[in-house]
Amino acid sequence: MKVAKFGGSSVASAEKFQQVAKIIGADPKRKIIVVSAPGKRFNEDTKMTDLLIQLTGAVVSGRTYEKEMKLVLNRYEEIASQLSLKHTLIEQIESSLNGLIQEYQHDSLRLADALKASGEDNNAKLMAAYLNALGKEAHYVSPKDAGILVTDQPGMARVLPESYALLEKLRERSGILVVPGFFGYSKQGNIVTFPRGGSDITGSIVAAGVQAELYENFTDVDSIYCVNPTIVPNPKEIKDLTYREMRELAYSGFSVFHDEALQPVVKAGIAVCVKNTNNPAARGTYIVSERNYNDMPVVGIASDKGFCNIHVSKYLMNREVGFGRKLLEILEDEHISYEHTPSGIDNISVIMRENQWTKEVEERVIARIQAELEVDDITVERDLALVMVVGEGMNSTVGVAAKATNAFARAGVNIEMINQGSSEVSMMFGVKSASHDKAVRALYEVYFNEIFSISYSNLH
Amino acid sequence: MKVAKFGGSSVASAEKFQQVAKIIGADPKRKIIVVSAPGKRFNEDTKMTDLLIQLTGAVVSGRTYEKEMKLVLNRYEEIASQLSLKHTLIEQIESSLNGLIQEYQHDSLRLADALKASGEDNNAKLMAAYLNALGKEAHYVSPKDAGILVTDQPGMARVLPESYALLEKLRERSGILVVPGFFGYSKQGNIVTFPRGGSDITGSIVAAGVQAELYENFTDVDSIYCVNPTIVPNPKEIKDLTYREMRELAYSGFSVFHDEALQPVVKAGIAVCVKNTNNPAARGTYIVSERNYNDMPVVGIASDKGFCNIHVSKYLMNREVGFGRKLLEILEDEHISYEHTPSGIDNISVIMRENQWTKEVEERVIARIQAELEVDDITVERDLALVMVVGEGMNSTVGVAAKATNAFARAGVNIEMINQGSSEVSMMFGVKSASHDKAVRALYEVYFNEIFSISYSNLH
Repeated sequence: MKVAKFGGSSVASAEKFQQVAKIIGADPKRKIIVVSAPGKRFNEDTKMTDLLIQLTGAVVSGRTYEKEMKLVLNRYEEIASQLSLKHTLIEQIESSLNGLIQEYQHDSLRLADALKASGEDNNAKLMAAYLNALGKEAHYVSPKDAGILVTDQPGMARVLPESYALLEKLRERSGILVVPGFFGYSKQGNIVTFPRGGSDITGSIVAAGVQAELYENFTDVDSIYCVNPTIVPNPKEIKDLTYREMRELAYSGFSVFHDEALQPVVKAGIAVCVKNTNNPAARGTYIVSERNYNDMPVVGIASDKGFCNIHVSKYLMNREVGFGRKLLEILEDEHISYEHTPSGIDNISVIMRENQWTKEVEERVIARIQAELEVDDITVERDLALVMVVGEGMNSTVGVAAKATNAFARAGVNIEMINQGSSEVSMMFGVKSASHDKAVRALYEVYFNEIFSISYSNLH
Repeated sequence: MKVAKFGGSSVASAEKFQQVAKIIGADPKRKIIVVSAPGKRFNEDTKMTDLLIQLTGAVVSGRTYEKEMKLVLNRYEEIASQLSLKHTLIEQIESSLNGLIQEYQHDSLRLADALKASGEDNNAKLMAAYLNALGKEAHYVSPKDAGILVTDQPGMARVLPESYALLEKLRERSGILVVPGFFGYSKQGNIVTFPRGGSDITGSIVAAGVQAELYENFTDVDSIYCVNPTIVPNPKEIKDLTYREMRELAYSGFSVFHDEALQPVVKAGIAVCVKNTNNPAARGTYIVSERNYNDMPVVGIASDKGFCNIHVSKYLMNREVGFGRKLLEILEDEHISYEHTPSGIDNISVIMRENQWTKEVEERVIARIQAELEVDDITVERDLALVMVVGEGMNSTVGVAAKATNAFARAGVNIEMINQGSSEVSMMFGVKSASHDKAVRALYEVYFNEIFSISYSNLH
């Protein structure tokens, strides 16, 4: 049994619905389908979720919301009519939206959650109706019926562990089950949406619950690329990726889906396949527990800008028990989260996202560090980028680090920091933000463009 | 004004006393002399300090200590007679030792401290007498008279801040002042010894107190070497070294003196010169606040074996506020000190000295980490060595990291860890202990033996 999740762009129009139905029909193992709300059909288009947020805004402001409601219904209407589905479906959607508005009109957070969730919910109903119209046995299954129980804070749902046993029973149902993504039901009976990566989370929870053999995540790219395509045009595709490698790559934000969403399948050890709705023949990228990394110790280059480095030095620091812990405690106290803490004998660097380090925070935290830890010196370096070489084979392959540092030396990129721990899947380099693109391209050349890469035998 | 400290081997015999007198005479700025107790004259010799520890043992055991006392007096006697000093000096030493034994016989810790300190104290008296005999104005100055006030725990003296103002007055005294190293006086009137690097600490405190232009540390090597000579024979000498570089090098234990001892001069910004008593014409190594590192970004290779790495991984670790702090808190609670904590997205390594990580500690700490932090996986890697490339210019020079990683790749050394923080003076590599010597030699070749080093232009 496979669970297939279709993202917003994959269910944005009638043509996409047809494409999805074809994909479902091509593999009888695709038993459970998780759908997003209709996404953008073209660059300037508005997503259904945003139309629903506009509708919520109109309702909450107390003004008439006829126009906003019409925009929402039009999107469904267009899909339904092009697929020759009954118009009564749209009437049902309208009446259910009005019902939600009546129910939650005095609680704007709940209203927002319920209306946003309706985007996925109604799209799932349309998809089930369309599959039925094609003569397939298909059933819309609401998250309540499926057993997706979540915590009760609006917009911040977390799945409750008892959901998995309930979801397991979906295995016994007949036909194709169409489940809306993005939300669950709390024990208090409320519709509650997931915080980020909404439909991805639903797909992952359902796949874990039914112990699927594969969780297919359909989106609009053929695969995950080994480097950000906006920096390196037409980069190589990644065939296989481990969960750990995926996490490291997702760090830089170029992942096609939200890494946190995968936790349930990672725990259950279920493989994930990222595939293209528009080109289902392409193999896609598989995300798995283990891969054979002999041929490909490095799988990708991740990177991100917007970091700063707080560098603290104190003579004899390494003889002072608890210094590091005390420093981290001050940061925690100030609600600052950090990324890495490379250290020397008498100094430690704390690398963090720069947006947390305002002038005000800087003054207060530096004063605290000076007063409480009596350090000799504190310096702050801004405008840093982190560039990571990611791969399971990194650590057991002689020369992987040499490749990277040579690439930087040849490109004239100065390395500000290096951080690599034993049995890690990544090696991190800190560079100035101005060198970011140059650094990423240099690493891409050396790891993925063999013509330019150096052979170590030449170094003798 | 210079403060010159002579270590045990530099004041071990009459010939060495003559050599010291010649050195003092060669530079009228050498106004304050700090001396150790007589050290070894040959490999199988026993140091004065050890003779005094044996004497303490005999006294504390309640048996007759005539033999032990004789061995102590004989060492001084031999020096005094060969230098034609008056025999009454030896009688004074004997009576002062008996006085200490009487005074402290019921407090073995105080007795041990007082007798150990007498090794330096009596040697300083002999040195002053010898300089007088040569017709120089020289005065023995006891630490009490000089103003070296310390805390009162036997064997654990720490200098009290008010000492510096007292020591400053030494500037006004005439003649050469000979101060015994290794101990001070507590406000309670006790003789208390310093924990480690004894005479080095005294020299450093005195140099800071009198605001010396230079603190000369005379020992038995021409200079500090850029790498451990037992691993690389006849290594290059270091001409200039910053305090920070010295600290990093001292980490590996091949430093000629104890780095902690230098804190007072480091704070006062006083330069230190390591020179050879047996070859005072050699320039020596200067340890300074700043050096011009354009010509020599890397100054030395430090290394040490006996480390282990506790590697902890947990999916979504980097979203968990306080994870690192909690981990360090457990270690602190278990009295484990650590060296470095390189981290990835979902994992963190803690590198520590292996002697702390017994089987018993391992079981308890791993159980705590699992229970309190709910981690996915903990692995322990033993038999690690840390190898460090040290130099102020490391961080601003493109290609320094490439040199090191290339050297490892060519030597077939796998890098287990890398740790380099911004504006640090060292880059740390973790390797298997079995590869330690090979790694150190490879780095020496590439940084200090230019014939074998690669030019980066060849990499294009």
